[in-house]
This record gives sequence, structure tokens and C-alpha cells, in this order.
Amino acid sequence: MRILVAGGTGKVGAAVVEALRGKHEVLVASRTSEYRVDVGDGASIDRLFGQVGTVDAVVSVLGSTPFPQFTDLTTDHFRAGIANKLLGQIDLVLRGRPFVADGGSFTLVSGILAREPIRSGAVASTVNGGLESFVRAAATELPRGIRINAVSPTVVTEALDVYGDFFPGFAPVPAADVARAFVKSVEGVHTGRIYELD
Amino acid sequence: MRILVAGGTGKVGAAVVEALRGKHEVLVASRTSEYRVDVGDGASIDRLFGQVGTVDAVVSVLGSTPFPQFTDLTTDHFRAGIANKLLGQIDLVLRGRPFVADGGSFTLVSGILAREPIRSGAVASTVNGGLESFVRAAATELPRGIRINAVSPTVVTEALDVYGDFFPGFAPVPAADVARAFVKSVEGVHTGRIYELD
Repeated sequence: MRILVAGGTGKVGAAVVEALRGKHEVLVASRTSEYRVDVGDGASIDRLFGQVGTVDAVVSVLGSTPFPQFTDLTTDHFRAGIANKLLGQIDLVLRGRPFVADGGSFTLVSGILAREPIRSGAVASTVNGGLESFVRAAATELPRGIRINAVSPTVVTEALDVYGDFFPGFAPVPAADVARAFVKSVEGVHTGRIYELD
Repeated sequence: MRILVAGGTGKVGAAVVEALRGKHEVLVASRTSEYRVDVGDGASIDRLFGQVGTVDAVVSVLGSTPFPQFTDLTTDHFRAGIANKLLGQIDLVLRGRPFVADGGSFTLVSGILAREPIRSGAVASTVNGGLESFVRAAATELPRGIRINAVSPTVVTEALDVYGDFFPGFAPVPAADVARAFVKSVEGVHTGRIYELD
């Protein structure tokens, strides 16, 4: 398959690229890659698809959200997280629709905070919960047999040094295990599924 | 209790006001009520709380989302639905925090599309899914024993004439049953709960 991985330079993204590269032609897009894309900038998504043309799968490992303390939390924090990880990925699907081959797929990234809150995680919870319901809805309406799933991991082992304190007692998963869920989505037959890794 | 009901003029809102009015002092806020509030306009929320002062409970039955056909769906439809029903209700919680008495509560409205997609419902699904994860997260961090829950109903009997065709085979619930879930949230002890009515 010909697969576009957007955000393929982070810890999980690099593991996804590694897992797919053996069997597939993988095109990596990010702010710093050969193919450029800025999440939240629709024009950059249109340019990206104009460059790469038709693909069999679009994989997104894109997006970040702020983690302010609850007492400091404002609606602007939600606006920022929503514009980036939620609308950024939805925009990738909506603008990418014409460029995905019949029977192709989208795979997005959400996260455990959709179902398990952590301290300072209200924005991320909201964004991830929205993404998962979006995936279940979009799966019922995408045309031409195009599938869509999301991978929803807990904290990854490789990021424990940065995020570990926010996940007390949570068992981490290696990025390679998260990558396997992306492979299941891309090469499998599922649609509307949320692959929970916790 | 002294209870502010925002959006208390729609079909569900009116039933909620009716259910609470016997036992409590109920203040109704909407675009057309004595107390004015425009969902999505933060300044109008600040003015509202300035007028009503401290309350024991804030109930929201606010918000709407667009229902475009999937082929016409753009990121702007998501922006509109998110700004209104999702960020509008989150803003009510964030700006309302200082005006809710110790041990008081917030009760928001989401909806069945968070868990069950319908045709043209991708925006509503996304918004409702985000709201439900927000409620689970906010429940862990609200100060002073303040609780928060959401009521997540299927289509209500009283709205079948307008929305019935979008919910084939879904059993409707009377608005009075939905109102009962709001009463459970306001008068009970739960927090972080999503009351699903389907």
C-alpha cells in the first residue's frame, strides 16, 4: 500500500513508520519532514494532498493539547487543544476524503484520557472523547468502502520521563505496541473501532 | 435550593424547569427569558452570573449543532457546533465556578449521538463525545465539593415530529423522563456520571 503518515516524527509516529515501512510505501508528513503539514492549517493539508496524490491509507499521529492546572483553566485552553488535535485531525479526514483510494482507510490518534481523567487533563479528555465519537460517526458515512478507526493509547514507555508523573500507577505501553494497533487498522477490515491500549 | 437553568425554554428545558420548580427556587436563563444568556458569548455568561449571584446548582439544557449531509461536511460545521454546544457549556462551567455554593453542582446536556451515530450526525457525535469526557475529567478537579454530571438522552417524544426521521427504530423517551435525570443529578450525590437515556 501507499500510506501517508502525518505526524510521523514523534515517539509514537516514528514507531508507526517503522512498523509499516517493511511492507508498504510510507510517506511521512510533519512540520519538519520532506512533506510539510501544519496541523490546524487547512491550506497546508490541501497542499500536502496535492503533492502526494492518491494513497491507500492516511495515518495521523498528530496533535497536542495544553495541560493547565484546573484552577487556571479557561475556554481559550479548550479552543487551542480543539483547534490542534481535534479539528486538525478532522480536517485531515475531510480534506483527505477525495485522495483516499476505494477501500482505503483513515487511522487517527486519540488517547486514554477520553475514558480515564488525570490531573490537569480536562482539555485532552475533551479532545480525545470528541475524536472517538467522531470516528464512530464518520465510519458510518464515509463513501467507497473507506474505513476509519482510532488508536487510543495510555502513556507510552518512551515518554515516561516527561509524562510519567501525570500517570501515577498507570502501566505504560511501549510505542511498538501502539504501532501494532495502527497496523491492525491499516491492514485489517475494521471500521468505527477505537483500539484502547491501557 | 437556588437553581439556575440555562436554556430552560426548549422542550427538555421546560420539562426540567417544571420538575424542579415545586421544591426549588428556579431561575431560567435563555436568549428570551428574564435572565439573558447567549451560548457561546462569554460576556453574556459573566453578566448572567453577575445578575443572579450565588446558586446551589447550574443546569444547562443549552446548545445546538448543525446536521449537514456527510458529503457537504466541512470543518466549519464542526467549528460552529463546537463553539455552541461544547464550548458554550464548558464556558458556563468555567465562568460559573465562583458562583456555585460549596457542595453545589453543574448538570450539562449531551446526547445519545456520543455513543450511537445517526445519518448526518457527525458534528453532534463529536460535540457530545467531547462533553462527556469533559464531565468525567472536570468531576475530578472541581473544588469545594462541587459536583458535575451530564444527561445524555435519545430523541425525546415531544421532538419526534422534527427529528423522528433521523432516529429510525430508536425508542423515544418523554421529556419528563429526561427531566428526572436532571433532578437526580441536582438533588443526588453523584459526580462524573453520564445519565444515558436510550
